[in-house]
Amino acid sequence: MKAIYLDNNATTRVDPSVVEAMLPFFTEHFGNASSAHSFGAEVGTAVKAARQQLQQLLGATHDHEIIYTSGGTESDNAAILSALEALPDRNEIVTSKVEHPAILSLCEHLEKTGRAKVHFIGVDSSGQLDIDAYRAALSDKVAVVSLMWANNETGTIFPVEGLAELAKEHGALFHTDAVQAVGKTPISLKDSAIDMLSLSGHKLHGPKGIGALYVKKGARFKPLIRGGHQERARRGGTENVPAIIGLGKAAELALQHMAEEQGRVKELRDRLEKAVLQRVPNCIVNGDRHDRLPNTTNIAFEYVESEAILLHLNRGGVAASSGSACTSGSMEPSHVLKAMAIPEAALHGAVRFSFSRDNVSEDVDRVVEALPGIVEKLREMSPFWADAEKKTNDSKPVFA
Amino acid sequence: MKAIYLDNNATTRVDPSVVEAMLPFFTEHFGNASSAHSFGAEVGTAVKAARQQLQQLLGATHDHEIIYTSGGTESDNAAILSALEALPDRNEIVTSKVEHPAILSLCEHLEKTGRAKVHFIGVDSSGQLDIDAYRAALSDKVAVVSLMWANNETGTIFPVEGLAELAKEHGALFHTDAVQAVGKTPISLKDSAIDMLSLSGHKLHGPKGIGALYVKKGARFKPLIRGGHQERARRGGTENVPAIIGLGKAAELALQHMAEEQGRVKELRDRLEKAVLQRVPNCIVNGDRHDRLPNTTNIAFEYVESEAILLHLNRGGVAASSGSACTSGSMEPSHVLKAMAIPEAALHGAVRFSFSRDNVSEDVDRVVEALPGIVEKLREMSPFWADAEKKTNDSKPVFA
Repeated sequence: MKAIYLDNNATTRVDPSVVEAMLPFFTEHFGNASSAHSFGAEVGTAVKAARQQLQQLLGATHDHEIIYTSGGTESDNAAILSALEALPDRNEIVTSKVEHPAILSLCEHLEKTGRAKVHFIGVDSSGQLDIDAYRAALSDKVAVVSLMWANNETGTIFPVEGLAELAKEHGALFHTDAVQAVGKTPISLKDSAIDMLSLSGHKLHGPKGIGALYVKKGARFKPLIRGGHQERARRGGTENVPAIIGLGKAAELALQHMAEEQGRVKELRDRLEKAVLQRVPNCIVNGDRHDRLPNTTNIAFEYVESEAILLHLNRGGVAASSGSACTSGSMEPSHVLKAMAIPEAALHGAVRFSFSRDNVSEDVDRVVEALPGIVEKLREMSPFWADAEKKTNDSKPVFA
Repeated sequence: MKAIYLDNNATTRVDPSVVEAMLPFFTEHFGNASSAHSFGAEVGTAVKAARQQLQQLLGATHDHEIIYTSGGTESDNAAILSALEALPDRNEIVTSKVEHPAILSLCEHLEKTGRAKVHFIGVDSSGQLDIDAYRAALSDKVAVVSLMWANNETGTIFPVEGLAELAKEHGALFHTDAVQAVGKTPISLKDSAIDMLSLSGHKLHGPKGIGALYVKKGARFKPLIRGGHQERARRGGTENVPAIIGLGKAAELALQHMAEEQGRVKELRDRLEKAVLQRVPNCIVNGDRHDRLPNTTNIAFEYVESEAILLHLNRGGVAASSGSACTSGSMEPSHVLKAMAIPEAALHGAVRFSFSRDNVSEDVDRVVEALPGIVEKLREMSPFWADAEKKTNDSKPVFA
């Protein structure tokens, strides 16, 4: 039985043509891009072309606005720490309660060690930012605002371009963790107020171990990793050439497939969501109905543990997730769903299904077939379910 | 004409069997190692095995003493910054004048920004550390000592195990940048006083974009990159699975080829060195005659610019280097050779030839054939050479 992968927000399959593009750079064109001889020169040219492919996907003005990193987490850390160092007269950070651990755990650490005061802005039940609280937190003490473009657990999209404009008014740098957005939703940084943007190769069918931090020309930046003069002395370390080439190819493919992502992939997601809501009582979709990634649905099943659902799905050959892979294994309910204040009965039963262009219609059929039985069986063992069943599900809203 | 690659200290060709080991992890076993489902589990098992392969090469007691990073530069930065954070009562760093830019540029930055006082210990004409100055710099104010295992430009090996013992006496953490040593010289960390060690995959026929920081069990450590719980919460970010697998395979191969490195590869290097010294007047070998990497020779040709030699070698299909690729393109003489106080006439004419197991005897023949003519031609154009030629070369020592 073919395994079905619906955890594309955790990582994606590398596109075979990405691997093909990378291959010559391991054993044939293996030079150090910084070397002066011909082994280096041929590689330097390829890196330049790959940088331009990524520039295209981001709609950036200059290819040198891209700094290659080892991935989204490094990009996030570099952005925040750079801002604190570049604007030494400011020591506040504004972020949200629903950011990825790459931002949250760093911010918590900075606060704990007294290096910054952090405003963690809340969200409403759809996962949308509390704009009033955001405005209130902004001041000329804020070095950097870091707000994600799209949430990894629910797919909710923040209006980052507008949020960046507000940050500008106070002279703060604006960073967005766009790890889940890049490749799934069109991005054009050319005329935006966004100063910094993080992305990761392996979320868009590129390789793991490579990411980028976009830094707008003119925005102040201090390196996280110092060494040689690579990346215009903004990130030391030998260029990860095969991965850079792979990310370039992945960016090119993402642009080509953008319509499919917003069309066919979204239709798969919508069909799954609709069918599950029809067939399984007492479940809700977490996230913003209107502003949401096309590939993601987060469905909370009341009175069930998500880990139990996932275990049964996995036995049936279906891979999904309860949230971020970075926090998997923990039995704590998701910090994202807690911040959204979703009903207590549903908090522990959330399952994220995240699609990609690798998925096909049969994948949806298999899940729709398996899921109602799994949930029903698990609920039969739940002491809370018997009570809950007495109530009807009809009056409940589909979105929390 | 086959191109000859003698710049293996800059980067190495990835071993084809390393690529083969990596390949399934791009498109087939592409899961996130932290995911709970079967796509994640199968990958987690492979990562564990790769970690043990690297453990073997290092002679480390525990596999969890290895923290995967994006490469040597990140490992170096993480080690130094961790020590300053972990030992907040100490704010001094002891290092040497001949370290890689990954250490030097960070230390210079820390000093410039007032975050640490740095002792840059000098070396003698063979590149060996001034032990008296080292002892004098140690105190209970020192948070970390960082001394390289083997120099990237000359191959000179520091007696790091003894140096680590001395650091211990003062309660300082001891870090070694072993990027050039790992895979070329046997290493056993089990009973050493070394707390931290940096290595890089692409220097030992593994992939770029992956490295490791060994942190001895019990040594205090603070993460540079914070995020998810990966690497036991010591380095956030999705595991770079294919590269980790590749580094594991490269480590296994390095152990298998260690005798060849110390035997056949060393013989190639020695033969080149001897022939060049015989055929080209007025040149000296930079580095320690006795304690030196088996693959590296750094030969300085008086009254010639190394960049000119390299250009001509490159035209003849031979890739070598004037020093670190991380500083290539700069016309500044090498900081390593300046610290060794090699004769002014030779300072600008140093060429590094670095071998690997990929090299064959014919590679040496080609260089030996080409080099004397190149140097002679360039010297004919040098105004200084006419005067120098009057002196005989016989009385000069072969090693500086």
